[in-house]
Amino acid sequence: MQTGQKLWERAKTVIPGANMLLSKRAELFLPGGWPSYFSKTSGCKVWDLDGREYIDVSIMGIGTNTLGYSHPDVDEIVKKVVIDGNMSTFNCPEEVYLAEELIAAHPWSGMARFARSGGEANSIAVRIARAYTNKDKIAICGYHGWHDWYLSTNLSSKSGLDEHLLPGLSPQGVPKALEGTVLPFEFNNIDQVEKIVKDHPDLAAIKMEVQRNVPPAPGFLEQIRNLTRKNDIILIFDECTSGFRETYGGLHKKYNIDPDIAVFGKALGNGYAISAVIGKKEIMQAAQSSFISSTFWTERIGPAAALATLEVMKQQNSWAQITKTGGYIREKWGDLAEKYGLPIQINGIPAISSFLIKSDNFLGYKTYITQQMLKNGILASNLVFTCLSHNREIIDHYLAHLDPIFARIRDCEDGMPIANLLDGETCHDGFKRLN
Amino acid sequence: MQTGQKLWERAKTVIPGANMLLSKRAELFLPGGWPSYFSKTSGCKVWDLDGREYIDVSIMGIGTNTLGYSHPDVDEIVKKVVIDGNMSTFNCPEEVYLAEELIAAHPWSGMARFARSGGEANSIAVRIARAYTNKDKIAICGYHGWHDWYLSTNLSSKSGLDEHLLPGLSPQGVPKALEGTVLPFEFNNIDQVEKIVKDHPDLAAIKMEVQRNVPPAPGFLEQIRNLTRKNDIILIFDECTSGFRETYGGLHKKYNIDPDIAVFGKALGNGYAISAVIGKKEIMQAAQSSFISSTFWTERIGPAAALATLEVMKQQNSWAQITKTGGYIREKWGDLAEKYGLPIQINGIPAISSFLIKSDNFLGYKTYITQQMLKNGILASNLVFTCLSHNREIIDHYLAHLDPIFARIRDCEDGMPIANLLDGETCHDGFKRLN
Repeated sequence: MQTGQKLWERAKTVIPGANMLLSKRAELFLPGGWPSYFSKTSGCKVWDLDGREYIDVSIMGIGTNTLGYSHPDVDEIVKKVVIDGNMSTFNCPEEVYLAEELIAAHPWSGMARFARSGGEANSIAVRIARAYTNKDKIAICGYHGWHDWYLSTNLSSKSGLDEHLLPGLSPQGVPKALEGTVLPFEFNNIDQVEKIVKDHPDLAAIKMEVQRNVPPAPGFLEQIRNLTRKNDIILIFDECTSGFRETYGGLHKKYNIDPDIAVFGKALGNGYAISAVIGKKEIMQAAQSSFISSTFWTERIGPAAALATLEVMKQQNSWAQITKTGGYIREKWGDLAEKYGLPIQINGIPAISSFLIKSDNFLGYKTYITQQMLKNGILASNLVFTCLSHNREIIDHYLAHLDPIFARIRDCEDGMPIANLLDGETCHDGFKRLN
Repeated sequence: MQTGQKLWERAKTVIPGANMLLSKRAELFLPGGWPSYFSKTSGCKVWDLDGREYIDVSIMGIGTNTLGYSHPDVDEIVKKVVIDGNMSTFNCPEEVYLAEELIAAHPWSGMARFARSGGEANSIAVRIARAYTNKDKIAICGYHGWHDWYLSTNLSSKSGLDEHLLPGLSPQGVPKALEGTVLPFEFNNIDQVEKIVKDHPDLAAIKMEVQRNVPPAPGFLEQIRNLTRKNDIILIFDECTSGFRETYGGLHKKYNIDPDIAVFGKALGNGYAISAVIGKKEIMQAAQSSFISSTFWTERIGPAAALATLEVMKQQNSWAQITKTGGYIREKWGDLAEKYGLPIQINGIPAISSFLIKSDNFLGYKTYITQQMLKNGILASNLVFTCLSHNREIIDHYLAHLDPIFARIRDCEDGMPIANLLDGETCHDGFKRLN
């Protein structure tokens, strides 16, 4: 057993669920085989606790590092913050500069607030929308964090968040009084949104991702925008995942639809904790009618790292590069699937591409991909967050290893049991209690 | 106008409320005169944007830096994290070590979860308690953050949080459905707690600070512990503020009362963002029946800084040192008040000491203290968070400057208008909209 796997077992005895983020669970990749912990990073490379080097063609910190890990320009600024001081009785000036930069990149907005996690930023956005409208209900589409307001969606029906977060998630621990306060709708289903608006005059906001799996249907975002404008409903785009991957800022810039509030996270600090809420000035000022305040939101690394990250993004047109890389990977996935006659479905924006092979054995195939790739020093599943360090050579190296894996998947589709190819258990699909 | 003051005015145009934390508002110290922003820190020194140096005998980052700012041992580890990598697809091993260390320091506990702000950690604790008990109501005493669950206290009565957070706080933006879910009680009022328990069989938890202004009355904590045990109510101690200031860990260790869950923040990472929830294993495992997960909770600086901080704390017995320093300051405050016949009231634990002069002019006096101290290169109000860098020489220097200020306050008590001594506006008292 490797050091990382041993530590993962140890973690299960002192941390419920073993870590802080579901998406980084070993069991979601390769139960018993995933290295689980890192000692070092660089570009798109990660080293485990035994010093083994891997090329990361998987979740890249779950999308935090579009410039690659350990980007020298960002890290230089963070080191300077550590030397100069991260925290004091005074505020850090960088938070003002970051507010100005995000507003400049989104001229429809006028004010900003920062937090240190995406879930927090989403909760701030919801608080502000409710405070401004003096209404409580929120219609949602997409993944918006772990907080009560969002998970309460599942109080009415355990399937409420099936398409948005995880199938069958239990809202255990969320106060039952919140039942009915949040109304989920399907992406691209404007009839459903219209019905929600009609049935709920006490709707404060529509909160949605601009895109997750499929692009918005022509007119969908426009219809949402018109509907919200006409009914004095705040439109919040959650750009935590989509932001800075197709444009310099929100994905909504691509579609020319301005929300009232937008939320950013993940890529904003290239691996350092920082999240942001930007919005129209009049609406954002409603924050002052509530209490939204936290000690660690005043630390300096977050906004300093974000400013450095944004600078590099602009210098490199990072969003265009990672989109191009994602497009290339999708094309080659398609080619390989065609070569082996595998029914593939490709999802997401180019810089967050994933595929499904339409088969009952898919979870086994996904496990097999991770297992084989790992043997070749590559971290991979069916999901790739692209970054600047993913150059053509690295991607071709990954694709070259994917070819024989797809060949064996073809064999499995033709009758070979996938279990014969797996050294251990099949990976988990979503949420499952760890013992 | 100094650079910091100019930037503070600029901040008001792009950030609602101008910053991320109420307690670091310029207007709470010296409207128009507070330097507001820092460029550099070291020990208990802070430099503003014009390079002016100040000795911080005030909130020390609002209690984040008990070892002093820019502690070399902690910063060295953080620099190493920046060099090695802060974030990756894998988890950071330090979170496991930190869980083990906190559990070892609190043998009643068995598991830990981490977040990056105190408000988040408190919300996790509440979620776990509700999930475990399958009950929704929470009785509270003290300050527990900005989240919906807590602010909902003020939905029933705007004075609900008067003694705990801020007088007259509006719960604007908190869903009204939460009304009645949180029940505030007065510190040391066991009758009130007993009544809440009797009236609310659906009480999941009692969540409280072990001490804020005055120490627990003899038997109070024992009575709470017995009551919760007998009624299957989870006892949560919020040690975000009190932790690591009188013991190595929770203040509850001093009183020998073990809760079921404890929450830590502030001092834990000596100025780097990290907060923790520890609890009994069986209870903490209820986290697995809910969804509590966030991308930035996986970054490495937080737990790495905490481990380094805990190491220094143990080497130096930091909690004993800062308690001794706080005790010395209180003694001298008392001496000065006696010298000038001022009616003083001293509050808090020694390492978080504050005083009130019982006078209608107190807010003016507080403003005057800050104004005069600032002219002498000292940051001060009526509240001191002590740190290891507050040596006798620095404290005596501060006290020497406090003497003539107390003399003038005596003059004011004798009829001189305090307004004559102030160069600008009186400081704000709590929450107020900034324009």
